[in-house]
Amino acid sequence: MTSSPAPGPSHAPPASCGAVPPPSLFVCVLCRLSADEEERSGRRLHDALVAAQQRAGTAAVRIVPAECLSNCNRACSVAFAGPDRWTYVYGGLAPDSAEAVLDGAVRYAATADGLVPWRERPDILRKGLIARIPPLATTQEP
Amino acid sequence: MTSSPAPGPSHAPPASCGAVPPPSLFVCVLCRLSADEEERSGRRLHDALVAAQQRAGTAAVRIVPAECLSNCNRACSVAFAGPDRWTYVYGGLAPDSAEAVLDGAVRYAATADGLVPWRERPDILRKGLIARIPPLATTQEP
Repeated sequence: MTSSPAPGPSHAPPASCGAVPPPSLFVCVLCRLSADEEERSGRRLHDALVAAQQRAGTAAVRIVPAECLSNCNRACSVAFAGPDRWTYVYGGLAPDSAEAVLDGAVRYAATADGLVPWRERPDILRKGLIARIPPLATTQEP
Repeated sequence: MTSSPAPGPSHAPPASCGAVPPPSLFVCVLCRLSADEEERSGRRLHDALVAAQQRAGTAAVRIVPAECLSNCNRACSVAFAGPDRWTYVYGGLAPDSAEAVLDGAVRYAATADGLVPWRERPDILRKGLIARIPPLATTQEP
């Protein structure tokens, strides 16, 4: 059963429309750590993340393969993003970073705004922070 | 007057809720190019962008001051972002980059997906690309 919202005269768009999807964990599957890789490291990182999430039995984030996050000099690259929250881009990763990246992503998903305290972030994400972008709703006026 | 949607049995969330705002141009106002700046270069870049947009008589983007895009090593930094489109982060900018940054942002706003062809981007944005993030709706399965 779904309860209906109370009727009212407001014509303003609702603050939230429909169900909010889980945050996305974008993984660049074109990243490589050397020119002669048989399978690209980015693809291996992606597959390792999917496997790690299955092992953990969580669906806290949606793992999405991406074709280039334009962070090629610091491969492998991922990004955490979702509606109404900060976006984070990380680099300097490798296929064996999957467990730590997933841990960071689950912590990110557990916040309301995407801001995970520095001391709670996995080491590899502290070292590999490339950039962050405010949520679209943010109207900071410092 | 606001027209009401046609009644129907669908419970799916609408594809679009309310008016779509213009893309945001986030400008880090904490960026500085030297430690002894009287006024931070990021703030000067922000103010120059606002002035440039006023001169151009455009409201194609919403210029939003931000407090740190975590790209401190390649200041000054900006990001282009909006619903259902790619996000771009740029660095290596300065207060006198304002006209070129605004030109790039207006071109970004004119696209449906945020993808401006490489040859149409201002030089300073070609050199200063830090990262890009897919739109949340993207479900690339390469």
